[in-house]
Amino acid sequence: MARTTGSHSEITGPRIREAALRLFARHGYAAVSMRQIATEVGVQAGALYNYTADKQSLLFSLMRGHMDELLAAHAALGQDGSPTARLERFTRFHISFHADRPQAVFISYMELRSLEPNNFQIIEALRRDYEDALESILRDGMAGGDFTIADPKIATLAVIAMLTGVNTWYRSAGRLSLEEVEQVYWDMVHRSVTE
Amino acid sequence: MARTTGSHSEITGPRIREAALRLFARHGYAAVSMRQIATEVGVQAGALYNYTADKQSLLFSLMRGHMDELLAAHAALGQDGSPTARLERFTRFHISFHADRPQAVFISYMELRSLEPNNFQIIEALRRDYEDALESILRDGMAGGDFTIADPKIATLAVIAMLTGVNTWYRSAGRLSLEEVEQVYWDMVHRSVTE
Repeated sequence: MARTTGSHSEITGPRIREAALRLFARHGYAAVSMRQIATEVGVQAGALYNYTADKQSLLFSLMRGHMDELLAAHAALGQDGSPTARLERFTRFHISFHADRPQAVFISYMELRSLEPNNFQIIEALRRDYEDALESILRDGMAGGDFTIADPKIATLAVIAMLTGVNTWYRSAGRLSLEEVEQVYWDMVHRSVTE
Repeated sequence: MARTTGSHSEITGPRIREAALRLFARHGYAAVSMRQIATEVGVQAGALYNYTADKQSLLFSLMRGHMDELLAAHAALGQDGSPTARLERFTRFHISFHADRPQAVFISYMELRSLEPNNFQIIEALRRDYEDALESILRDGMAGGDFTIADPKIATLAVIAMLTGVNTWYRSAGRLSLEEVEQVYWDMVHRSVTE
């Protein structure tokens, strides 16, 4: 991605990303023009091209940034403890990380269709890295007798879908705190992989 | 929805719905014009307005039709058997019904944002009816001692999210048949609600 240096672009870059995220989430990538993003930021359309080559690069950068953050934050959790402790950490982490970024999560799922093939491959590979991290926790637990799982690949996808689903209904003003929600999900996840 | 009678509209109606579904799923509702839908069907744009009042009515009709079909098909399963038998039936039904209609499912989740408020209320109410059907299975199982569930509302949403997630990865040409996938999920769902 072309990026100019200096204070102007440093101020504008995050605002462009935030505006694009908001507009893509609201209307869908295909319906949003670079001109609309510029208007939302309050700059001329030309100023956007100092920051990003085109709309596809901007989408890719948002989706890649989201996956990079997810993988870095997950790696920072470490590998300490039993498979059960690691699975609990994964469960709570996944819920809280995703609850903090509803728009980025929405776009990451919905706009896979809008990525050009090369970009799609890269995002898919990052997504697989994340899935692999969970799958290896499950496999370690199977090997040690902590977990009983018929198909660890499917269990990985099932757990991730269950946890990401929190984003479709959780509201911070609702009857449960996010910590309470994490506890209920952890209990269900744990049971689903044990006999 | 305005609908003309006679053979012309009977042939064109399903084709319009199918074309709109395909285009909305591919590009997003906001990016698709009535003119594009007409071109996809191979009719003049004016012919669409014999079938539907506008694009919003068409989207609403697709989403409502999907929910009506889902609720009717689920009701046809009946209420016979133990809560465990009913939960297994629900699990297998949900997976196979959704796997058959990936575009309608995708739109039903993604384009909630595009519904006008009145239409949104109606779709949300139908969705709650479906969730309530699962929740009452879970509550019956709790009452009879079959299930141990901390929060049946959350368990309902967690199970539905887990099962709908199959659509993001299942391909009929993959290593597992849909029946095998149903079995793995049923095993996980059953464990997640029992101790």
